[in-house]
Amino acid sequence: MTRPHSSLPSLAVEPGFFRGRRIADLQQAMASGSLTAQDLVRHAGAAIERLNPQLNAFVHVDIAAALATACERDAERAGGKVRGPLHGIPVAIKDNVDTADMPTTVGAAHFLGRQPLADARCVALLREAGAIVVGKTLTHEFAYGPTGDRSVQGAARNPWRTSQMTGGSSAGSAAAVASGMVPVALGTDTGGSVRVPSALCGLVGFKPTHGRVSDAGVFPLAPTLEDPGVLASCVEDAQVFMQALTGGAMAPQAAPAAAAAAGLRMGWVANAPFAIDDAAVTACARAAAERFAGGAVPPAPEVTRHARALQSALGAIQRAEAYEVHAERVESEPGKFDPEVLERLRASRPVQGWEYVRAIKERARLQAEFARLFQDVDVLALPAVAITAPALQQRTVAGPGSAGVRETLLGLTNPWNVLGLPAISLPVGWVDGMPVGLQLVAAAGTDEALLALAASRWQAPQAD
Amino acid sequence: MTRPHSSLPSLAVEPGFFRGRRIADLQQAMASGSLTAQDLVRHAGAAIERLNPQLNAFVHVDIAAALATACERDAERAGGKVRGPLHGIPVAIKDNVDTADMPTTVGAAHFLGRQPLADARCVALLREAGAIVVGKTLTHEFAYGPTGDRSVQGAARNPWRTSQMTGGSSAGSAAAVASGMVPVALGTDTGGSVRVPSALCGLVGFKPTHGRVSDAGVFPLAPTLEDPGVLASCVEDAQVFMQALTGGAMAPQAAPAAAAAAGLRMGWVANAPFAIDDAAVTACARAAAERFAGGAVPPAPEVTRHARALQSALGAIQRAEAYEVHAERVESEPGKFDPEVLERLRASRPVQGWEYVRAIKERARLQAEFARLFQDVDVLALPAVAITAPALQQRTVAGPGSAGVRETLLGLTNPWNVLGLPAISLPVGWVDGMPVGLQLVAAAGTDEALLALAASRWQAPQAD
Repeated sequence: MTRPHSSLPSLAVEPGFFRGRRIADLQQAMASGSLTAQDLVRHAGAAIERLNPQLNAFVHVDIAAALATACERDAERAGGKVRGPLHGIPVAIKDNVDTADMPTTVGAAHFLGRQPLADARCVALLREAGAIVVGKTLTHEFAYGPTGDRSVQGAARNPWRTSQMTGGSSAGSAAAVASGMVPVALGTDTGGSVRVPSALCGLVGFKPTHGRVSDAGVFPLAPTLEDPGVLASCVEDAQVFMQALTGGAMAPQAAPAAAAAAGLRMGWVANAPFAIDDAAVTACARAAAERFAGGAVPPAPEVTRHARALQSALGAIQRAEAYEVHAERVESEPGKFDPEVLERLRASRPVQGWEYVRAIKERARLQAEFARLFQDVDVLALPAVAITAPALQQRTVAGPGSAGVRETLLGLTNPWNVLGLPAISLPVGWVDGMPVGLQLVAAAGTDEALLALAASRWQAPQAD
Repeated sequence: MTRPHSSLPSLAVEPGFFRGRRIADLQQAMASGSLTAQDLVRHAGAAIERLNPQLNAFVHVDIAAALATACERDAERAGGKVRGPLHGIPVAIKDNVDTADMPTTVGAAHFLGRQPLADARCVALLREAGAIVVGKTLTHEFAYGPTGDRSVQGAARNPWRTSQMTGGSSAGSAAAVASGMVPVALGTDTGGSVRVPSALCGLVGFKPTHGRVSDAGVFPLAPTLEDPGVLASCVEDAQVFMQALTGGAMAPQAAPAAAAAAGLRMGWVANAPFAIDDAAVTACARAAAERFAGGAVPPAPEVTRHARALQSALGAIQRAEAYEVHAERVESEPGKFDPEVLERLRASRPVQGWEYVRAIKERARLQAEFARLFQDVDVLALPAVAITAPALQQRTVAGPGSAGVRETLLGLTNPWNVLGLPAISLPVGWVDGMPVGLQLVAAAGTDEALLALAASRWQAPQAD
């Protein structure tokens, strides 16, 4: 194991077994016989048992079933069959993604105890790749919130400081991986729901190009903005997870050649039109970008002038699509919603049909603009989130540039959902003891290259 | 010339040269040297000059330019170059389709004198195939009406009885071909705008599978429902026109083999949930269907139970997309609209975004249902329009089943736009001296087979 616990900064909670352990190391240990898949599941079970009461990461756990599966995977390995780099690896699944053997509540009272008949396509692919599902992780109710503190199962808590939010909506997946309960987890990202909690919890979070991962069996928030993604503790783990999620299509790419690496064209995107600016957070992310680029990072051309159009298109698309999912439920069972989610849904209703049609046209225009922009820039860099994790239930960011927590959390991530671009959040340091994420965004369809770039440049930050 | 004028029923107007002349016959005449393209353009010019004051089919004509082009086409032919079956054939273009050498007004005061910089893609393809554009034909204002009697250029008149409407929105194209001013014309069809005027004017009207013909340079009504199509006096002419419109992709297919022809599975669609029923019109269309099928035509399974869903999806999609096109114009220049079109547009505004999203989902579901249905049926048959041509400006269909003219004209054609299916209207007889159309609808993407079937079964009806 290459990164012993002792070199890592402290969490507020006692770390679980998987903290600081990479999937490749776990595979090596299983290959050498020093660990079995059953051992890994037992470690997951023990960590969940110890930590979940503090973090509320998991809303459903089935260690017995996971052990039975682990037993099969161990037998396969003993027989010479290794399905791939996730063979025998415990994983967690966000609770808005269908699982045939566990309830899927989407964090909502409406769906308590709901048992899907089949696995979502991405869960089926993970299992085919040998991953072992140990449980379902808390999602913000109906995945409609970036704070992760409103659901029928309550709030998830940030392992770095349990008074703070994890961010959301993939809240439990972030808490589970950050605390070392599991090495890697599935999330979904419609406006930042993988990258925001990854950034606030010090994880690698990757959202692929729109449509590259099947959303069949994922309870929708806003389908044309939404993609399954991964929360992991290092880029390599994210790479093998994405490979499994795409049935092998998104295979890890070799690091860019030295020449290409030297010529990396990175453009910095200012917070200003998208979100407030916390100087310490921005400085931390920017310093990391400059380390990656090996020098100064010039401003990205053109991006900020599209900010208004991006926000406007995003608002119309997300609201119209989200309300469509819930229209009948808002009418017939309003009392079952969390009041904040209900209010957001009701505010989503008034989008006009023609405004949605206009937004879809605008999106196509903006996608063409950014396709041109990416002819001159390889990767855009900006903070993943403009601030560190707020307190649970906090809804306003104090200070001179007072702003809403929700808008602040999503402001730097959701432009890339409108455009359908691949984006990754990388943990690059801490401000006041809380993690900061650097976000890299690349051209549509270049997921493999973005991941390879991140893998070649990123190193886990060390505490001061 | 195989169908001399004398065997055709009488129009209310003196027929132009092209009435009863097939494109293949014109090609043969040009090949033998008995006619030139310049002769054809002169015939078109003479007919337009004589008939257009009565019919108001053309809103812009340029015979001088057409003659210059005809001269080039004749020279090419003399040099051994024949571009294809439209070489030297005069055609008319609906005035919502851009032409680089003629204004394109879309029938609207807002656009009087507007001169596009380039040909629409489909016009460019027609010209590349050798067709000669003689002029632009009247469209219902902004193509938003099936009556063809409201535009800044007034109403087109039905050549069969000039007190009656042509139907629309491809009104002038129908009047121009039905009266023999030109042999064939371009139209566009969003809810029936090719098939309705074809049926009311006794023409063959074909709308392809959605997306098979480029809509670049077509002024949009509701883009996801809309397709360029053809109005012609026989199926073979429609076939060669569609071939040109698709750059050769939709080449005429041979007639079905005798065995396949004998086994044709035709299903009859009742008017009832879609439109009122005029017994004489339905009987005329049904008798033709039975002649085509060589016997009784059983009811098509399943179709009518989808009627409500089809109409609901159509309404939301058409209204939201149409309002998006005109939102700013309705605000800033309402007084320039025809009052009826303005009223329709204003009534289109209230569609909610979530309702549009729902309609798009519903359309996908219905398309899957109909794909299954077409495993058991080769072709659906029904009247193209439930009634014969109403009087100009008439807005209510009298009688016990009183209904709006607009809904009645579109009720049997617009379900196939929602589904994006290919559909053809064939002239099959007359009721009280006015033409009746039989509509055939086939599975998505089977345009060539549908045209081949129609070509093999249809014969121009003879007057009693």
